[in-house]
Amino acid sequence: MARRPKVVIVGCGFGGLFAARALRHAPVDVLLIDRSNYHLFQPLLYQVASAALAPADIAQPIRFILRGQRNALVMMAEVTRVDAAGRCVYAGENAVAYDYLILAPGAVDNYFGHPEWHKYAPGMKAVEDATLIRSRMLASFEIAEFETDPQQQAAHLAFIIIGGGPTGVELAGAIKEVAVDVIPRDFRVADTRKARVILIEAGPRLLPALRPESSERALKQLHDLHVEVLVGKPVTAVFEDGVEAGGERLYSYNVIWAAGVKASPILATLGTELGPGGRVKVLPDCSVPGQPNVFVIGDAAFLIDWKTNQQVPGVSQGALQMGRYVARVIQQDISSDDPAQRGKLRAEGFHYKDLGAMATIGKSRAVVEIGRLRFGGFLAWCAWLALHITVLIGFRNRASVLLSWIYSYFFYGRGSRLITNFSSEQMAELSSDTMKGAGAGTPPADQAKE
Amino acid sequence: MARRPKVVIVGCGFGGLFAARALRHAPVDVLLIDRSNYHLFQPLLYQVASAALAPADIAQPIRFILRGQRNALVMMAEVTRVDAAGRCVYAGENAVAYDYLILAPGAVDNYFGHPEWHKYAPGMKAVEDATLIRSRMLASFEIAEFETDPQQQAAHLAFIIIGGGPTGVELAGAIKEVAVDVIPRDFRVADTRKARVILIEAGPRLLPALRPESSERALKQLHDLHVEVLVGKPVTAVFEDGVEAGGERLYSYNVIWAAGVKASPILATLGTELGPGGRVKVLPDCSVPGQPNVFVIGDAAFLIDWKTNQQVPGVSQGALQMGRYVARVIQQDISSDDPAQRGKLRAEGFHYKDLGAMATIGKSRAVVEIGRLRFGGFLAWCAWLALHITVLIGFRNRASVLLSWIYSYFFYGRGSRLITNFSSEQMAELSSDTMKGAGAGTPPADQAKE
Repeated sequence: MARRPKVVIVGCGFGGLFAARALRHAPVDVLLIDRSNYHLFQPLLYQVASAALAPADIAQPIRFILRGQRNALVMMAEVTRVDAAGRCVYAGENAVAYDYLILAPGAVDNYFGHPEWHKYAPGMKAVEDATLIRSRMLASFEIAEFETDPQQQAAHLAFIIIGGGPTGVELAGAIKEVAVDVIPRDFRVADTRKARVILIEAGPRLLPALRPESSERALKQLHDLHVEVLVGKPVTAVFEDGVEAGGERLYSYNVIWAAGVKASPILATLGTELGPGGRVKVLPDCSVPGQPNVFVIGDAAFLIDWKTNQQVPGVSQGALQMGRYVARVIQQDISSDDPAQRGKLRAEGFHYKDLGAMATIGKSRAVVEIGRLRFGGFLAWCAWLALHITVLIGFRNRASVLLSWIYSYFFYGRGSRLITNFSSEQMAELSSDTMKGAGAGTPPADQAKE
Repeated sequence: MARRPKVVIVGCGFGGLFAARALRHAPVDVLLIDRSNYHLFQPLLYQVASAALAPADIAQPIRFILRGQRNALVMMAEVTRVDAAGRCVYAGENAVAYDYLILAPGAVDNYFGHPEWHKYAPGMKAVEDATLIRSRMLASFEIAEFETDPQQQAAHLAFIIIGGGPTGVELAGAIKEVAVDVIPRDFRVADTRKARVILIEAGPRLLPALRPESSERALKQLHDLHVEVLVGKPVTAVFEDGVEAGGERLYSYNVIWAAGVKASPILATLGTELGPGGRVKVLPDCSVPGQPNVFVIGDAAFLIDWKTNQQVPGVSQGALQMGRYVARVIQQDISSDDPAQRGKLRAEGFHYKDLGAMATIGKSRAVVEIGRLRFGGFLAWCAWLALHITVLIGFRNRASVLLSWIYSYFFYGRGSRLITNFSSEQMAELSSDTMKGAGAGTPPADQAKE
């Protein structure tokens, strides 16, 4: 073979990145395409939304991560469709050919038939989502400081998070801590410690992917932080100033969507059967039926584990393990060393090794499940930190990033509380809200709270 | 007097912030209004544009800075006009009354009659400007990696900075260092070390506010970094793909405007005479003629120093000193202790104490003028650092911020190289550009440069 096979990877989340890294010694040319120029450490995105970390703290340029990998090219582009027959992927009119294709495009927010809710309840998938949520949260505190109508002030000091999975649980704890521990002294009139944080879950318990006892632990720890939790209350309507959940009307100018995801729309262009949430029903080797050189991994794939008979969960570990697996499958396919080995991994199929699940609640609480071990509290939180360290060390040069996070997270306090990229309409509205309150009779600064 | 006088400060740059701080023990109520929720350390904004620092590194929430100052309220709003007769400022329809008004709104970019140039040559005033310049710069490197037309590739690897003042000089040095020292190993095909950085100054020399020998030093140090400098070449046209300067057509997809500023448009609503660049011609006590309770400070004010007979320069030190001065004037006005002292400072007038001027060129060079001392090189750069430390220590709690900067600046390397907030049109264009190049024949990764 004169030409080395070309492996195109679409998406640089955990799945795509670990697939690329696992191919670093393979006799292939890797082209990694992503719509961002950075890999996002998504498990900590909620800390950007809650203004504890800056985007650069949890995002690393993909080129920088792969700078030492000579067989990898990195391209910033948005793939809009796949042409399986022509063996190429497209961005608009321009095609890039592949010999092997690994699709790891991730997921997008799922509003379950109500796309109009997005406007009032942004989701938490990208850096821009998180900075938008951060800006809205901080702007709401700004307005509350001058709002003279008590009901309006309360609505600006209320935060509703829809969805009781790990993202929702972590965000609720983080926002409550900001309001109670970080910013109260910054405000003269509004008492941010009275801010309500309401976490709404449609199902019967929080963290449905974990065991019931972990749900109980999470609930208790959220109560300790004075987060209000509503379970078994499906949200039936979302408005600019709140939601309707389980028949009850709740008022808040800060509604955040963490209730579910669906797979990326580019999967529909593959021309294969889609499973629940638009995920591709892949074969046990993660390939697309009838297209053995096309793989779908991460939360874009729907796969029942042959060993456990359970669906591979759409979490970082699932994506990461699938990425490594398909990289090895490709290496076996093209290996000329030992023909007997060829296809062995494919025949075996992917098996998800469950390393446990966890969720942090604020800065010193968590729930953890590792095998048969299930615990909560400070010890669980230490375990959460240890896992993140372990994953991070996997990247070369990332120890320094981790140190920076720890530094920012514990010793810094100031965080990254910037309101940025407001449109002129948003700015005008905020100006109008704050000045209206001030004009109506600003309290003398020294007569304010306390 | 039952009611304490209300001092409204518009704008929280160095002028507004130091005025507020200087009033901390005064028997007044301070209301500080700014369109952002943070104070921006503008002298380092060019480092955000060159992806060395993250926005949060150089921006601090105003509330956080003033959290200990009990007589100060902070409001986020955009003041659109002043009603001098009614003694109030407006955002839209809503008014806030004042007894004393300190206007410190800063300046905006001046395109000297060519507002249409803004689209292709963004300026450097706000955080959003800097992150836009950063995103465009990084996206240009992305496109260059896959661009097969050598002329187009060269245009993506060229950076034109218009304006040879401190901002232009500092930005030129910083971008050149990114291209040469920071990112070359991240790219396989494009040789970023060949990136051209062209600094264009219409006048006869760089850094016109400094002495000719400093201009010479800056020029030499920029040459050492291989920055191309054109002096005496006014830019006569700006296009999407470059500029025309001194009759010559130069090609670049990264044109940055650092050529000049004009005062904020809200000053025109004061109904008083405006001087050069829309600045308010203030009296020697920084007040507006006929309105002794309204002050204009910083680069919004035009004032000839009574002692030196020179215009007070529109630099941070000028704003900061004016802010402190007007705070003392107000304190004398309202002081009942010693009527003989009242008006003394007003009669004296503001005098600008020149603490020197400086500009950094890259990470280890600078030019400095302090009194009769003028020097360049590494020693000057140390002086630059020392001054920034001095200014920073003035803020309480800011030592930690400085440590973080030093850390990020020297030991980190990774910087903040994120392409964010691209519109869907920008994203589609970039995707199209990179994939077109790749489709036309991606070079095998291992055959690339070197």
